[in-house]
Amino acid sequence: MLIPQTSSSLVDTLRQRRQKLASLIDFPAILWSGSNSPRNFPANSFAFRANSHFLYFAGLPLANAAIRLEAGKLELFMEDPSPSSALWHGEMPTREEIAEQIGADVARPMAELGSWLEDAATIAVQDAATWTQQSQLLNRWVLPQSLPQEIDLELAKAIVFLRLTHDDAALTELRKAAAVTVQVHKAGMAATPQAKLEAEVRAAMEGVIIANNMTTSYNSIVTVHGEVLHNEHYHHHLQPGDLLLADVGAETETGWAADVTRTWPVSGNFSSTQREIYNVVLAAHDACIAKIYPGVEYGDIHLLAATVIAEGLVDLGILRGNPQDLVEMDVHALFFPHGIGHLLGLDVHDMEDLGDLAGYEEGRTRSDRFGLGYLRLNRPLRPGMLVTIEPGFYQVPAILNDANVRSTYQNVVNWQRLSEFADVRGIRIEDDVLVTTEGSEVLTAALPNDANIIENLVNS
Amino acid sequence: MLIPQTSSSLVDTLRQRRQKLASLIDFPAILWSGSNSPRNFPANSFAFRANSHFLYFAGLPLANAAIRLEAGKLELFMEDPSPSSALWHGEMPTREEIAEQIGADVARPMAELGSWLEDAATIAVQDAATWTQQSQLLNRWVLPQSLPQEIDLELAKAIVFLRLTHDDAALTELRKAAAVTVQVHKAGMAATPQAKLEAEVRAAMEGVIIANNMTTSYNSIVTVHGEVLHNEHYHHHLQPGDLLLADVGAETETGWAADVTRTWPVSGNFSSTQREIYNVVLAAHDACIAKIYPGVEYGDIHLLAATVIAEGLVDLGILRGNPQDLVEMDVHALFFPHGIGHLLGLDVHDMEDLGDLAGYEEGRTRSDRFGLGYLRLNRPLRPGMLVTIEPGFYQVPAILNDANVRSTYQNVVNWQRLSEFADVRGIRIEDDVLVTTEGSEVLTAALPNDANIIENLVNS
Repeated sequence: MLIPQTSSSLVDTLRQRRQKLASLIDFPAILWSGSNSPRNFPANSFAFRANSHFLYFAGLPLANAAIRLEAGKLELFMEDPSPSSALWHGEMPTREEIAEQIGADVARPMAELGSWLEDAATIAVQDAATWTQQSQLLNRWVLPQSLPQEIDLELAKAIVFLRLTHDDAALTELRKAAAVTVQVHKAGMAATPQAKLEAEVRAAMEGVIIANNMTTSYNSIVTVHGEVLHNEHYHHHLQPGDLLLADVGAETETGWAADVTRTWPVSGNFSSTQREIYNVVLAAHDACIAKIYPGVEYGDIHLLAATVIAEGLVDLGILRGNPQDLVEMDVHALFFPHGIGHLLGLDVHDMEDLGDLAGYEEGRTRSDRFGLGYLRLNRPLRPGMLVTIEPGFYQVPAILNDANVRSTYQNVVNWQRLSEFADVRGIRIEDDVLVTTEGSEVLTAALPNDANIIENLVNS
Repeated sequence: MLIPQTSSSLVDTLRQRRQKLASLIDFPAILWSGSNSPRNFPANSFAFRANSHFLYFAGLPLANAAIRLEAGKLELFMEDPSPSSALWHGEMPTREEIAEQIGADVARPMAELGSWLEDAATIAVQDAATWTQQSQLLNRWVLPQSLPQEIDLELAKAIVFLRLTHDDAALTELRKAAAVTVQVHKAGMAATPQAKLEAEVRAAMEGVIIANNMTTSYNSIVTVHGEVLHNEHYHHHLQPGDLLLADVGAETETGWAADVTRTWPVSGNFSSTQREIYNVVLAAHDACIAKIYPGVEYGDIHLLAATVIAEGLVDLGILRGNPQDLVEMDVHALFFPHGIGHLLGLDVHDMEDLGDLAGYEEGRTRSDRFGLGYLRLNRPLRPGMLVTIEPGFYQVPAILNDANVRSTYQNVVNWQRLSEFADVRGIRIEDDVLVTTEGSEVLTAALPNDANIIENLVNS
């Protein structure tokens, strides 16, 4: 549990974070870490994941702990390890040792937390044992499924402001997650020629994550049915003509995430139709990244992706008309029905536990437009923000076989021409892009996305 | 989600199970499957695990579903997939299709469950969203952390009676889990010479599980510090003189578990002291398995392991005295502080969600004796029971450095001689043993445990 890290740098980082918080709120905040979520019985739990807001200010994935932040001071609340726990879990650091490691001003037993709650704000943790405790101690409902209210909302907004842009310590961890994730995807490509099942490619990819003592930051997608956007099944056999879509990311021990997608041909060679569509998606990906600068609206990046995809499909004879007009008609969303990306940080959709509080600039709400309603980020970009850029092309039967869709878009889609691209079920190319003062830096740039180089990696 | 299985065999199995249940209770039972447990935000959940009692009678890992069992009839309650879910999750089977696959007599929307609750018993599911729903609908607290009461207790006892012995369909799945787990451990041994970290061996082992489209049935232990009994860290470097203890098991897609431990030398060669202790543990393991017959008390198997370990340690000069007397003094528990094993089935500690209801014969309770209090199973064995046999030897500092322990056992432990075995921190050998009418069958027998063969597997 103790992270090998020079204590002084962790202590300094955490002090700076809470001093910034103190400049934004004038009341105390108490953040709980959470407890294990049981799987099929209490002693057989899912691997513990500390709450992200706690991790941001406490730095270590402590279970059953809380911190109190007030005026730049850090108080740690946790029990000392019980004498019997040494038998099962080994010698654990004491509360005082942990307090020293994170630079806490005071360390108290968890049982004393009840005396330090007055006027304190909090944010709900996901596991029921903890949000029940939060609600009981604070004598108000603190529910993960409800947006925070009153001072809890003020706290949430302050934390969103801080976590929207990443400090150096965060970037160090995010780069680690990105670097391992690059290796993960290379391993997946290299394992594909010998694999018979999606599950075998997944094993090669997640094996790299486990070997690096990290976890997946979300449930992996490794599928020859990329047209199913959240496909968490891995039982399909790989066929030579298939494209394999892999959306897999690593998360460091202190909770910082990567989120990367590549799509490669099972045979090691794209068919001509697959290559043509792949290059349309890649053109959208590259155009979006080239436009990432401070001040640019992320919503405009999404529309740029839509336009480049529409242009590409017009060039291929799949769509008819002017690309700008097609985007205004939402034609692109038939094939690219999700958003261009989202915030990335301690959560793969960063701060999504707070609904759209982080993703949407104050006063903005989700669009009613088909395809645009799924956009998770709608803010002007600022240096230090980390976002994904993940355009895609999918032939989703539920969309393309819909009678309304076919009649609405009868004249702008060349359905006959589209049928020639039947071997392209789903393609997505996703990278993690840091907004810098000069423009952007792709943290996952070491992973190739050129079709020819991808083929070489699969065939190597 | 749909399991490739001949529908008729699944349907027959489930019918037999609920007919047996109907012969034990005369009231309806409603079993919920449970829902996803959120990880750091609601859309980023832990991999879904259906409740084991539900799986036993419904056969498929359906989320957000319930079944009602009455007089041998099966009613399925679940929603049809929503139209928009096809975009994200692909075409899903309808309620009627699933009902047919599991042989349900009736299929209804989940929303109608409220009309079918009268006089029904249930068992709490682990996730909060579901036990909250159970409690609200039944208008009584149904809590996973409390033992069931009244008709819920009657239902639990009936299910325990059924699940204590495994039918052919269960054994088919348990054998699959065991067979993959054998490959898992062989892969771990083969990966050790190239590995620098525990995490790398873990990756090789869990990779086999993932490649077979299974999951781990519990959080893996892969450690050079086997003396920490529940060691879920993987960051230690492997040193040539270390023993690596790996306790890793696979779980099939329908929830059936394996649970296996092997201990092997990082260098590929046991030291003479490591080999001597290893063979003591192996002698206990073999002696216990040889004594497994219907009618034998599992508690006596535990005491047999204790006695064989005490004998071995006397022979090595570590203990002094008569082995039987030493066991009565609990001296063996200094080195073997846990139970000899537990029930295995849909849960790795089968039915531990019901406390000791499954593990302990009615009227029996946990012992106060040091070492014996951790025994999870205390019943006479019956054909069809699956148990683990997992003796071990550990040098736990929290036990052996305790001043009371050292004074209490001053004359029976040769502490000087013990210090010569400092390179043996933890050894465990664990197999999955089915009680048969003739005696026993080791489901994991294909995995060697002889020290020389283990060395060959590491060195191969």
